[in-house]
Amino acid sequence: MNAIDRLVALFSKLPGIGKKTATRLAYHILDADPSYALLLAEQLASLHALIKRCSICGSFTEADPCPICTDQDRDAATICVVERPQDVRVIEESREFHGRFHVLGGLIAPLDGISPSDLAIGSLLSRVRAEGTREVILAINPTVEGDTTALYIQKLLKESHLIVTRLASGLPVGGDLEYTDRLTLSRSFRGRVKID
Amino acid sequence: MNAIDRLVALFSKLPGIGKKTATRLAYHILDADPSYALLLAEQLASLHALIKRCSICGSFTEADPCPICTDQDRDAATICVVERPQDVRVIEESREFHGRFHVLGGLIAPLDGISPSDLAIGSLLSRVRAEGTREVILAINPTVEGDTTALYIQKLLKESHLIVTRLASGLPVGGDLEYTDRLTLSRSFRGRVKID
Repeated sequence: MNAIDRLVALFSKLPGIGKKTATRLAYHILDADPSYALLLAEQLASLHALIKRCSICGSFTEADPCPICTDQDRDAATICVVERPQDVRVIEESREFHGRFHVLGGLIAPLDGISPSDLAIGSLLSRVRAEGTREVILAINPTVEGDTTALYIQKLLKESHLIVTRLASGLPVGGDLEYTDRLTLSRSFRGRVKID
Repeated sequence: MNAIDRLVALFSKLPGIGKKTATRLAYHILDADPSYALLLAEQLASLHALIKRCSICGSFTEADPCPICTDQDRDAATICVVERPQDVRVIEESREFHGRFHVLGGLIAPLDGISPSDLAIGSLLSRVRAEGTREVILAINPTVEGDTTALYIQKLLKESHLIVTRLASGLPVGGDLEYTDRLTLSRSFRGRVKID
């Protein structure tokens, strides 16, 4: 196995990258200026040393606590609960939310052996008590595991007299009724909003 | 820009990798065992030092001349001409060809400023004269640039009394007449073969 084959084998392990794509990438890098490969190598080699988990919210960050948790201009009374660190990025890019985050690190999935104790739910309850939270927004995917996890957290938070909300589920913007699945349609009916 | 953003920016420069895919890859690597990132970094850092161009055929290799050019069991009298080093890999994987290769390093494309002198055509003529070649197979893509390049090489080799062939063009195996474009259909008619 030569150096190209080894690189192809490594690229093939990435999600959504098959052997053909891995080969195309490897040859592209070989054809490109060597400085690109060196720069990419450097970034990869230093990645895990530079990036840690925020000790408050659990998202990836270079500084602990992360810039979002320490930003005094953000609304500390609202916590947006997400499954994974990359969800924080997606929500930040939408510029729709200005509170704090909390990363669960997964969803309850008994079939995959993931129980509530594997997730950062205990630390969420501590934060809610300590930070004077008024609203917890569950920004969790509308899947079976997501629904289970949302219901579980909602029940735990019931006693704390705060508002627990969940992202609206329904037709995507630009979507088409004809191509919408039955469950999404059913949710968009149940969650219909009044037009003023 | 933090370490994740820098990695995303670098991945986004790869062909067929948009910002979304680049982000998914970066977070996947961050989530995975750090040994993967280090291994990938190592391979990338050493890639250009390990891989060179074969001084005979022009394909990528760790040893110069490459294992194909030095393999005495291969038919030295047949040269398969390809556009890029990765084409050598594709043909090798098909196990259909047992001769030597010659990599042009591109195709004639006047609009992109690529003329015959930019390609390894001179060295092909030298090899044909020196190696006692009997057949040159032009394994060049059936595109406008490919057709131009094939015609150009064919004319140059005309005087040398060797066989010049080109890969058959026509319906792909498992293909459907209904979904075949007009040019491919036309080529498959002109190249039709007699059934014994």
